[in-house]
Amino acid sequence: MRRNQKTIVQIVIVFVLVSATSAVSSAGVAPPAIDAARLQRSLEDLSVFGRPAGGSFADGVSRFAYSDADVAGRAFVMQLIRSAGLQPRIDTAGNIRVRREGTGVGLKPIMIGSHIDSVPGGGNFDGALGSMAAIEILRILQDGKIGLRHPLEVTLWSNEEGGTVGSGLATGAYGRDALELTLNGIKRADGLRRIGGDPERLAAARIAPGSLDAYLELHIEQSGLLEKASVPIGVVDGIVAIDEYELEISGFANHAGTTPMPDRRNALLAAAKLIEAVQEEVTREPGRQVGTVGHLEVFPNARNVVPGRVKATLELRDLDAAKIAAIGERIAARARGIAAETRTEITLRKVETDPPALATPRIQHEIETTAAGLGFKTMHLPSGAGHDAQILAKVADMGMIFVPSLRGVSHSPKESTPWPDCANGANVLLQTLLRLDREP
Amino acid sequence: MRRNQKTIVQIVIVFVLVSATSAVSSAGVAPPAIDAARLQRSLEDLSVFGRPAGGSFADGVSRFAYSDADVAGRAFVMQLIRSAGLQPRIDTAGNIRVRREGTGVGLKPIMIGSHIDSVPGGGNFDGALGSMAAIEILRILQDGKIGLRHPLEVTLWSNEEGGTVGSGLATGAYGRDALELTLNGIKRADGLRRIGGDPERLAAARIAPGSLDAYLELHIEQSGLLEKASVPIGVVDGIVAIDEYELEISGFANHAGTTPMPDRRNALLAAAKLIEAVQEEVTREPGRQVGTVGHLEVFPNARNVVPGRVKATLELRDLDAAKIAAIGERIAARARGIAAETRTEITLRKVETDPPALATPRIQHEIETTAAGLGFKTMHLPSGAGHDAQILAKVADMGMIFVPSLRGVSHSPKESTPWPDCANGANVLLQTLLRLDREP
Repeated sequence: MRRNQKTIVQIVIVFVLVSATSAVSSAGVAPPAIDAARLQRSLEDLSVFGRPAGGSFADGVSRFAYSDADVAGRAFVMQLIRSAGLQPRIDTAGNIRVRREGTGVGLKPIMIGSHIDSVPGGGNFDGALGSMAAIEILRILQDGKIGLRHPLEVTLWSNEEGGTVGSGLATGAYGRDALELTLNGIKRADGLRRIGGDPERLAAARIAPGSLDAYLELHIEQSGLLEKASVPIGVVDGIVAIDEYELEISGFANHAGTTPMPDRRNALLAAAKLIEAVQEEVTREPGRQVGTVGHLEVFPNARNVVPGRVKATLELRDLDAAKIAAIGERIAARARGIAAETRTEITLRKVETDPPALATPRIQHEIETTAAGLGFKTMHLPSGAGHDAQILAKVADMGMIFVPSLRGVSHSPKESTPWPDCANGANVLLQTLLRLDREP
Repeated sequence: MRRNQKTIVQIVIVFVLVSATSAVSSAGVAPPAIDAARLQRSLEDLSVFGRPAGGSFADGVSRFAYSDADVAGRAFVMQLIRSAGLQPRIDTAGNIRVRREGTGVGLKPIMIGSHIDSVPGGGNFDGALGSMAAIEILRILQDGKIGLRHPLEVTLWSNEEGGTVGSGLATGAYGRDALELTLNGIKRADGLRRIGGDPERLAAARIAPGSLDAYLELHIEQSGLLEKASVPIGVVDGIVAIDEYELEISGFANHAGTTPMPDRRNALLAAAKLIEAVQEEVTREPGRQVGTVGHLEVFPNARNVVPGRVKATLELRDLDAAKIAAIGERIAARARGIAAETRTEITLRKVETDPPALATPRIQHEIETTAAGLGFKTMHLPSGAGHDAQILAKVADMGMIFVPSLRGVSHSPKESTPWPDCANGANVLLQTLLRLDREP
């Protein structure tokens, strides 16, 4: 697969040069273009941090936030930034940030960025592409000594996959209390300290509302819409609302050989009924809403013991926040019935709710115009996945660029975006940035 | 609770003395009786090995085989045996054994015993009661200089909860290959070495078929039948057959926000349907059969990833081996349907099958007669739990004595048997032993 991709990269470099040439003919000056081979190499280099032992790029990555792999990957990207002649810093919310000053006076910064943490057993494009594209843009601007009017800020947000923690803390969307949560065995506050943040001085990381000119993020689509439509660039019109629940079922642990079936209070049987109820309630009405029980733990989890307790998570997503709130209520009603039927106690607690976030129409338009100028077909679409961009939308004008995910696979080692699509997306990001910088 | 129990112990001592007195009047000689307070103290002393930090007796024990707690508990019981003036040894299968010679010529030994290992998060009576009662009997015989015609062997079997490993190896029911399995993170062969056994010389531990006169074991019932019937002594008529299965479901891990519901291949949804199918198939026909999915793991087990893989265990138990075999086949058929419906792959592999083991009618009769002689009501019942006694039944005449488990709770810190019931069971064990010893 990598051999094929290298061949394709040769083709895309030619293609990019052709695009660049056509841009020359219209504008009279050769616009800067990203180095597709260098972008690919950055992604390949980053992929070793959290790679399964003995695996290759195709085996994906487990670089979840605050892990050793995350710490090592962060050190690597900071070194990349330094080698471009810029000085990165870690803000108190754990985000890696770098600022390149502009030539204009009194202009607000334009920010680009993404994240390099992954889910456990994830892929090498989610977050990594937008992060490495942002660093590639820094290098292109530095190498070409290209001055922008606006200051340019690049931010690699910490712990996106664990709940957009870094962007949430920096924008003030989350407070200090959000750091009490534990995920993948690490309490967020401890994890934040581990990567160089400071839970006690979060205000120092604050990005005030209105302090940015714009926030742009390039990301893989994570759905199959662009590939199916053979469209290389997606213009995101909004990010869906997410409701997160924690689920706990208490029955009674007892001997699996001696406890008669009617006497059991089996927490796992109750969980099974509830998982089916979630499926039924989510698919009961038409639409693109999704619901997932992704994490589940059984206690004591022994072959010969009737499960006494189950902990699990539930999340519901849709562009329509009221729709998922209503589905959550229907699931809670089902849970009450299942608890009575199985003689267990079920608690379903909403722990987080993210409203939908709309991309700013002005920026959607600039992305669309830029992509068209480079000769790319575009398509408007919502994002089913949450992104740091949706948090940034609370304090700044925001836009997102999507590139195709093969077969719609993501959060999986099989996640893949062809290298030409990666380069095309990075070029749309660069040219949109330059276009926004020229705006009066 | 312990304060109450101490008061009750005073009562039971009186009760035991009354029983002893009534036995005097019929036989003309005071028969020996166990020291109820000393038995309780032994169980309390043993309970500290594997007790949760800062806990009490009521908080149960995690003394799973080969753990530090198991090693320490074994050292403690060997010291108890030594203090009775007898020399314990560890056989190559890891069992703690001690032999007290008899006065007769050419008589086979009578063996009594149980186990001191527990499940993780278990209680202080399962195995421990039969073990401490056997040691109490040794002390009573030694203190009273009471000679038996038959040699008496006491055996504390190693790793009962992990699959009757010590008794299986000693009887030849299991071969060297059984030691390749790993449980609770410890490979059986390594664990066996850790407790002083020798995987390479298992033949030296061998108990040949026909080499024992009888094997007796006292154990808690682990069900609620005796308590509900207000009967203090159960006469076990057999131990159920067990079929063990390993279950693996492969779907496809994908992003929980971007993967449309109809495109999912959700391994946890398939598992939920299968857990319900197990419940339905096991309870479809009348009888005391039980079926349990006790252990379940989800991969990658992240909040925002559609589960791609599930591993789980299934066990089925009944006195009728053909019945659980048929239930297993019905579950396998349901699994094929669920796999097709959820577009997953499901493998259900039978990894172990233990036939039912019947207690020897002669010994059942002796237990019943003995208990009646002590003034106890008795009740015949099967054992839903597996025991070393079922393995011993392959090579010797076997009998088991049950005492009540409060509310039928076991394999749990809440496992409890009133101290008077413990003493009563130990006395029935002692008197049955003496009665078997007198048989021509």
